[in-house]
Amino acid sequence: MRLDEGTSGVFAIAATPFLPGGAIDEASVDRLTDFYVGCGVSGLTILGIMGEAPKLDQAEALALSDRVIRRAGVPVIVGVSAPGFAAMRGLAHGAMASGAAGVMIAPPPSLRTDDQIISYYRQAVAAIGADVPFVIQDYPLTLSVVMTPGVIRAIVMEHSSCVMLKHEDWPGLEKISALRGFQREGSMRPLSILTGNGGLFLDFEMERGADGAMTGYAFPDMLVELVARAGAGEREAAHDLFDAHLPLIRYEQQQGIGLAVRKYVLWRRGAIAHETQRAPAAGLSAVARAEIEYLLERLGRRDRRAVLG
Amino acid sequence: MRLDEGTSGVFAIAATPFLPGGAIDEASVDRLTDFYVGCGVSGLTILGIMGEAPKLDQAEALALSDRVIRRAGVPVIVGVSAPGFAAMRGLAHGAMASGAAGVMIAPPPSLRTDDQIISYYRQAVAAIGADVPFVIQDYPLTLSVVMTPGVIRAIVMEHSSCVMLKHEDWPGLEKISALRGFQREGSMRPLSILTGNGGLFLDFEMERGADGAMTGYAFPDMLVELVARAGAGEREAAHDLFDAHLPLIRYEQQQGIGLAVRKYVLWRRGAIAHETQRAPAAGLSAVARAEIEYLLERLGRRDRRAVLG
Amino acid sequence: MRLDEGTSGVFAIAATPFLPGGAIDEASVDRLTDFYVGCGVSGLTILGIMGEAPKLDQAEALALSDRVIRRAGVPVIVGVSAPGFAAMRGLAHGAMASGAAGVMIAPPPSLRTDDQIISYYRQAVAAIGADVPFVIQDYPLTLSVVMTPGVIRAIVMEHSSCVMLKHEDWPGLEKISALRGFQREGSMRPLSILTGNGGLFLDFEMERGADGAMTGYAFPDMLVELVARAGAGEREAAHDLFDAHLPLIRYEQQQGIGLAVRKYVLWRRGAIAHETQRAPAAGLSAVARAEIEYLLERLGRRDRRAVLG
Amino acid sequence: MRLDEGTSGVFAIAATPFLPGGAIDEASVDRLTDFYVGCGVSGLTILGIMGEAPKLDQAEALALSDRVIRRAGVPVIVGVSAPGFAAMRGLAHGAMASGAAGVMIAPPPSLRTDDQIISYYRQAVAAIGADVPFVIQDYPLTLSVVMTPGVIRAIVMEHSSCVMLKHEDWPGLEKISALRGFQREGSMRPLSILTGNGGLFLDFEMERGADGAMTGYAFPDMLVELVARAGAGEREAAHDLFDAHLPLIRYEQQQGIGLAVRKYVLWRRGAIAHETQRAPAAGLSAVARAEIEYLLERLGRRDRRAVLG
Repeated sequence: MRLDEGTSGVFAIAATPFLPGGAIDEASVDRLTDFYVGCGVSGLTILGIMGEAPKLDQAEALALSDRVIRRAGVPVIVGVSAPGFAAMRGLAHGAMASGAAGVMIAPPPSLRTDDQIISYYRQAVAAIGADVPFVIQDYPLTLSVVMTPGVIRAIVMEHSSCVMLKHEDWPGLEKISALRGFQREGSMRPLSILTGNGGLFLDFEMERGADGAMTGYAFPDMLVELVARAGAGEREAAHDLFDAHLPLIRYEQQQGIGLAVRKYVLWRRGAIAHETQRAPAAGLSAVARAEIEYLLERLGRRDRRAVLG
Repeated sequence: MRLDEGTSGVFAIAATPFLPGGAIDEASVDRLTDFYVGCGVSGLTILGIMGEAPKLDQAEALALSDRVIRRAGVPVIVGVSAPGFAAMRGLAHGAMASGAAGVMIAPPPSLRTDDQIISYYRQAVAAIGADVPFVIQDYPLTLSVVMTPGVIRAIVMEHSSCVMLKHEDWPGLEKISALRGFQREGSMRPLSILTGNGGLFLDFEMERGADGAMTGYAFPDMLVELVARAGAGEREAAHDLFDAHLPLIRYEQQQGIGLAVRKYVLWRRGAIAHETQRAPAAGLSAVARAEIEYLLERLGRRDRRAVLG
Repeated sequence: MRLDEGTSGVFAIAATPFLPGGAIDEASVDRLTDFYVGCGVSGLTILGIMGEAPKLDQAEALALSDRVIRRAGVPVIVGVSAPGFAAMRGLAHGAMASGAAGVMIAPPPSLRTDDQIISYYRQAVAAIGADVPFVIQDYPLTLSVVMTPGVIRAIVMEHSSCVMLKHEDWPGLEKISALRGFQREGSMRPLSILTGNGGLFLDFEMERGADGAMTGYAFPDMLVELVARAGAGEREAAHDLFDAHLPLIRYEQQQGIGLAVRKYVLWRRGAIAHETQRAPAAGLSAVARAEIEYLLERLGRRDRRAVLG
Repeated sequence: MRLDEGTSGVFAIAATPFLPGGAIDEASVDRLTDFYVGCGVSGLTILGIMGEAPKLDQAEALALSDRVIRRAGVPVIVGVSAPGFAAMRGLAHGAMASGAAGVMIAPPPSLRTDDQIISYYRQAVAAIGADVPFVIQDYPLTLSVVMTPGVIRAIVMEHSSCVMLKHEDWPGLEKISALRGFQREGSMRPLSILTGNGGLFLDFEMERGADGAMTGYAFPDMLVELVARAGAGEREAAHDLFDAHLPLIRYEQQQGIGLAVRKYVLWRRGAIAHETQRAPAAGLSAVARAEIEYLLERLGRRDRRAVLG
């Protein structure tokens, strides 16, 4: 259950369920974990941006991590991005001690030059230890750090513990092609590439060479089916399935309120008891809820998983 | 043919056609103008970001503006955003002298506070003259300037010449609702709201109260039909049409390469002779072209406008 | 020993001393605390940006805070800025339980509009409790959040626990005048204003109405004297003293390496045992050290405190 | 009178004088040009950020450039930074036709990666022509583009027409040392380095290997003397002179109002008829003017050039 460069499939970016008062909703943590596993995911990723990780304190983060890992029975990646290396080290060691499959590290928004990014990952590896498998989170839209394919290659080649890219550049299709080109020409060793962005480009990302998805779209079962169909070469079926979900995927992928949409749908699917987010949080208006219901109704005509009663 | 707060429909954000060597392709300018008008648009918007306006020098910009306005026979909005007010004034006066319906002004990326934004539009109006109808361009994703509904209201109420919002916030549905709420409660006078973002949320934007779209999606004829159906209350038909186009809309809406996709499709539709952009420009790989062709083929099964032969 | 709107004088932004291996150097923490108190400061501020707070984990932060507060015998402000409110609450309650005089809160870099800033402080006060005195940290150069005087007034008027501004806008002299103007006209209640920016404008900040300084310049004894002379109306003497130190103040105020300069001088003055910073850290070249020595030598001719032997 | 890698001395960043109504004040343009030349500068740089270049339209820019070049009798560098390459080419060719010594190009704020920066200068050289000597403007504080020494070297080695760096990184002393190190080790050909930042670090920049200054401090005669003394190895005299001016240099170096301070002092020195800036502009309060007068009075006791009567 350790992450390696051959890891593939769907890793659900897990939401963190809260009670209306703001405490972690442990019953829903368990229920949601079971829901994801029941959807057929290959693994889970917890304590990412969409898991509201920065809103937890360190003790909460470690307790949540331990709870999910013990229950899931599938590999769990733990986000350990932190403002400093002491906190990152504490989170990483705690998570690995609980049985995590690996950790995910996002670059801090202040990084600009290629050298700064490469140097940051060097310091991060020094902090967490060279034996902890890690995932590069490449998410310029939110983090404002732009990594070229060459920078990613440099990090991969410097650290044997770098086994996966969470690919979330935008646009990003050519980046997948460039990285797979590096592998073909022999200038980069194999790397697992799982894609994010809520699945908004997953149809073509699989065709470009992605190994699967790591994202939190509220129908992970659809993601699992899509990745399977794409892997089996069923192009038309994969696109048909994708296109049916795209109106909702697109709606969920709105910056700022995307997590509210996602939690609402997870709640409607019975996976969590409350759609609560911790502050600061953008809520949904009544009109937005009605829009989501309309999208679900339309989707339900093409995919029975969306018939929620 | 002057813009006012009652303006509605689709204003196509016009691409600027270039010859392979980089000069403006005047024949294609005419052909593209005719194409847009033939699509049934209510107007055109030229010299916007997607019209590669910053890549033209002032003489080119004025000549292009004059050519399009004389040919179009529909209202034309001219983008006059510029690093300084002298250039803005020159462009605005030249465009209005050619017969433009109004001008569009984006805030410079350095603005931060509410006061700075309001003050900027005050200076812009002083520069172009209080008699020139103008459009606020609200596009935080690219411009990094965030305008609250309250700031937009303040600008609208200060300047009677502010008659339209190019709405391109992201997410933006609640912003439309908030502005329409201001009008209902009587705290803001009527304002035309045309939405952008490549049409990615146009289905719901119309339902929230938008007056139409101002965007450059390469099927403006579809946008025209969608706005008409939404206006006629044909909700299901509008969403069916929208959903058929969404995979391509989404593909075209990729930051950085979106304009290349758009020009490719316009070229495939015969609206321009070359897909050339001026430098700096991101081109399309062979794989990307094949992806677009595949999207067009799939779309053609549901909308004959996409059967391109 | 609770912070209030009448607090004045010099609050030293305390460096955090580390051993060469990176652990907190507790002996130097004590020695440095005694050094600051011996310089005549009115209080200390710990766990700020220049105290390398983000590099400590929460347990280290609380232990350090407790140690300094118990030893200092002067009011101690504790920085509690954190990526989320759970961590902020934990730090704030821990610090106040140890006897802190108040806490300091910086806005997260993602905030843009006036409303977002005001709302953030509302949520922060909800998190830490309305009874905890707090300081607004206004530092646009590093945080990229721009607060107008009007926004600061709104926060002050909404929360009686907001008693102090750490003024670090740049330029900032007019901001002090504007805020004092608000007080004179009766639209804002009294507010303590202590200025930062390494003291680079302290000469005029005092004349504009600041109550003192909150900064980490390695000669806090000079800051104390300067504030006293300014308070006594000894304008020429204050400027003479300031001008003598300005070459070094300026050198220490370099973004990125400023803290290295400051720790070097503190080490040369015997206040800490090592100039170590935790990673990531910019070190000093041999040439830079020689430059600092030269500045100290020149300063020593005009201020005996800089004769270090 | 063409710029090359051996160019040294002081290039004054020229202010652009305006009449109270906002038109260019041609008489003051001439008077200011004569003033700079009378100060002993080696050259002038016009149409930079502090020359309010973005506020001029292209015709004004070319006319101003022509007027200054014809009058100056010293080499003139013309800023040609523009939102697009068409405008840049027009400015560059116009300026060179008027007899400019070279042009200066700043990177647009959107650039992030090393490759993007290098590629931008490649496109710029293609636009202006490989025979036009150019200066890289490296000014991260305002432009938010960070160039490593390695990126600068790559640009220098790719383009023989790249002959000068306007050095304005912050902090920047180590960057000068790194670039001179490249030259010593033979990995970079010689490059003229003139430093900016209002002269705030000029004392040590000269010692690190700068060839002079390119900045707009309102006492260019002092900069000339300082560069001469530093070149003659008169270290103490250079620092004494620098330290006398530092309080005013520091005051002038405030972001946002620095240009207002500079124009005020130029006006007080009789070099321009009005301190007018074009909008948008930050003005000086009465208190700020009094502060500058006080700084001039104090400076006048140590440097007779500041005795203004």
